[in-house]
Amino acid sequence: MKVVKFGGSSLASGDQVKKVFDIVTSDPDRKVVVVSAPGKRYPEDCKVTDLLIELGERTLRGEEAPEYLSAVIDRYSQVAAELKLPAEIVSKIEKDLIQLLNADKTVQARYIDAIKASGEDNNAKLIAEYFKSRGIEASYINPKEAGLLVEENGGTALVLKKSYENLKSLRKRSGILIFPGFFGYNEASEVVTFSRSGSDITGSILANGIEADLYENFTDVDAVYSVNPNVVSNPKEIRELTYREMRELSYAGFSVFHDEALIPAFEAGIPVHIKNTNNPEAAGTRIVNERKNTNGPVIGIASDDDFCSIYVNKYLMNKEIGFGRKLLSILEDFGLTYEHSPSGIDDLSIILRQKQMNAETEELILERIRTDLKPDEVTVEHNLSLIMMVGEGMRHNIGTAARASKALAEARVNIEMINQGSSEVSMMFGVKEAQEKKAVQALYEEFFVGVYA
Amino acid sequence: MKVVKFGGSSLASGDQVKKVFDIVTSDPDRKVVVVSAPGKRYPEDCKVTDLLIELGERTLRGEEAPEYLSAVIDRYSQVAAELKLPAEIVSKIEKDLIQLLNADKTVQARYIDAIKASGEDNNAKLIAEYFKSRGIEASYINPKEAGLLVEENGGTALVLKKSYENLKSLRKRSGILIFPGFFGYNEASEVVTFSRSGSDITGSILANGIEADLYENFTDVDAVYSVNPNVVSNPKEIRELTYREMRELSYAGFSVFHDEALIPAFEAGIPVHIKNTNNPEAAGTRIVNERKNTNGPVIGIASDDDFCSIYVNKYLMNKEIGFGRKLLSILEDFGLTYEHSPSGIDDLSIILRQKQMNAETEELILERIRTDLKPDEVTVEHNLSLIMMVGEGMRHNIGTAARASKALAEARVNIEMINQGSSEVSMMFGVKEAQEKKAVQALYEEFFVGVYA
Repeated sequence: MKVVKFGGSSLASGDQVKKVFDIVTSDPDRKVVVVSAPGKRYPEDCKVTDLLIELGERTLRGEEAPEYLSAVIDRYSQVAAELKLPAEIVSKIEKDLIQLLNADKTVQARYIDAIKASGEDNNAKLIAEYFKSRGIEASYINPKEAGLLVEENGGTALVLKKSYENLKSLRKRSGILIFPGFFGYNEASEVVTFSRSGSDITGSILANGIEADLYENFTDVDAVYSVNPNVVSNPKEIRELTYREMRELSYAGFSVFHDEALIPAFEAGIPVHIKNTNNPEAAGTRIVNERKNTNGPVIGIASDDDFCSIYVNKYLMNKEIGFGRKLLSILEDFGLTYEHSPSGIDDLSIILRQKQMNAETEELILERIRTDLKPDEVTVEHNLSLIMMVGEGMRHNIGTAARASKALAEARVNIEMINQGSSEVSMMFGVKEAQEKKAVQALYEEFFVGVYA
Repeated sequence: MKVVKFGGSSLASGDQVKKVFDIVTSDPDRKVVVVSAPGKRYPEDCKVTDLLIELGERTLRGEEAPEYLSAVIDRYSQVAAELKLPAEIVSKIEKDLIQLLNADKTVQARYIDAIKASGEDNNAKLIAEYFKSRGIEASYINPKEAGLLVEENGGTALVLKKSYENLKSLRKRSGILIFPGFFGYNEASEVVTFSRSGSDITGSILANGIEADLYENFTDVDAVYSVNPNVVSNPKEIRELTYREMRELSYAGFSVFHDEALIPAFEAGIPVHIKNTNNPEAAGTRIVNERKNTNGPVIGIASDDDFCSIYVNKYLMNKEIGFGRKLLSILEDFGLTYEHSPSGIDDLSIILRQKQMNAETEELILERIRTDLKPDEVTVEHNLSLIMMVGEGMRHNIGTAARASKALAEARVNIEMINQGSSEVSMMFGVKEAQEKKAVQALYEEFFVGVYA
């Protein structure tokens, strides 16, 4: 039994929905289909979810926004027309949406969530109708009825454990089940949406709940690439990736999907298969618990910019018990998270995402450090990039650091920082932003070109 | 004007004192001579200071210890005899020592300090007599009279700022001034000794106080070596070393002397010249503020063992504000200092000197980490060595990391940790203790062999 999730671009038009139909019906194991709201048909297009948010917020402010309402309805109309579905389905969607817009506005977050979630919810209804129109037994499943219960936590939904037990009964339903992604219901039967990549989370929860053999995640790329295709053209595709590798890669800019979405599937040991709706024959990428290493030490290289480094120097620092802790406490007082803290005898650097500070808070932080820690020197270096090399094959692999630093040296990249020693499956380099692209290319060249066919 | 300091082995016998005489009198700028207590004449010999400590502690406990008293007096007798000094000088020393042993024992630390310090004090008196017997104008200087004032801080002496002003007047004294190392006087006119390498500290303070042009530190090696001669035979000598390089090297096992002893000289910008009493013609090593780089990126390689690593893993750790701070707080509660903390996305390691924990405290610490931080995993890896590569030439030197890690890879050394990014003049590698020697040899081979003549 498989859970199959389709992203917004896979459902952006009637033609796309037909592809989804073909994919789902080509494999009798594809039982549960999780759908997103219609996404972009072309780069400048608007996602239905974004239209709904705008519509909801304007209505909340008491503004009329008929153009957004009709833009949303138009999208469904077009899809319905392309799929030759009766117009009735679209009037139902419109009625439903108007009802949501007129609902109680006391709790603004719940009001907006219900409108946002309607993008997926109505799409699931429409797609179920299409499957039926093609003579396939299929039904729309409402998350409340199925028991996908959540609690609100910091603005987004967190699944409750009992949901898994509830969802298990979906196994017994006959036909294909079309399930809207992105939201669940709280104990008060209100809609609460998941964070970013919410449909991925729904699919992952369902895979866990119905004890699926596989969670197929259909998107618009043939595979996860070993490196960002904007940095290296035609990079190698990754066939198999462990959960841990996925997590380390997604940390530094790999955005195929949000790795935390995979937790429910990961906890149940269910493999995830990333595939392309537009090219379902492509092998895709499997995310698994363990993999055979056929690729040398490195499986992927990711990078992200916009980091900075706070450098603190104080003679005899390493004799001062609590120095590092006090420095981290100051960052914590300002609500900052840090990525790494390389240290020397008399100096300590803290690498963090610089968007967490503006010029003013930066000055306040430096002032606190000066006052509380009395350092000899404290400075900030801006515009650093972190490059993450990831691979299970790096465990105890002698020479990976040597190959990487040699490749960077030959590319005339100055390594500002090396972070190796905690994770066994990754190694991190800090470089100036201006050298990031060159550095990633050099590492790719070293570890991928000529490595496998 | 120069301050010249001689260590214990340089003063262990009459023959050694004659060498000291020749060295001092060969240069009219050698004005202030700081002396240690007589040290070891051969590897199994006892240092006078160690005999004095044993003598003092036994007497404090109410035990008779005539053998230690006579062992101390014997050492001075032998030196005096070899130098053909009148026996009277030795009886004076004996009288002085017996007086100290009979002194008030209320404050045990002061009682012991006075006995310990007598090793240097009496040696200074003896050497001044010898210089005079050779027809040279010389005088013993008492630190109290000269105004070397200290306060007791955590068991050891800390120099008071006003001492420098007091000591300045020594410039005006005529002849050679023989000054005992290792101690000063507190405001109550009691002896307080400096920490380890106390005579180096006295020399450094005097150099600052009399505004010396040079602080010459005579010991029993021709120079500071680029690497431990027990690991690499006949290693290159270092001709010039910056204070910062010295500090980074001494951190990880370079024990020519305690780098903190140099602070007073360093603050006054006075260069230090390390020379060999037994081979004064040798060029020695100069410690300076800035040096010309004639040696490639690395000036020295030091290493030390007996480190361990506490590894903590927790899914989504990097989202948890304060995680690192809480971990460091736990270490602080146990009074532990740490050296470095490499981090991954979901993991954090703390490298520390393992002698700080026994099996019991280690378990208590792990338990606290488990209880307070609820990690997915916490383990300790023992028996690690840290290897420190130091050199001003490493600032922005592209390729140093590459050469180092390549050399280690070729020697089949597995790098457990790389710490680079805070200090610009050092790079640290963590390896298993069993691989330390091989690693240091490989790095030496890479950066020194064939580099300069």
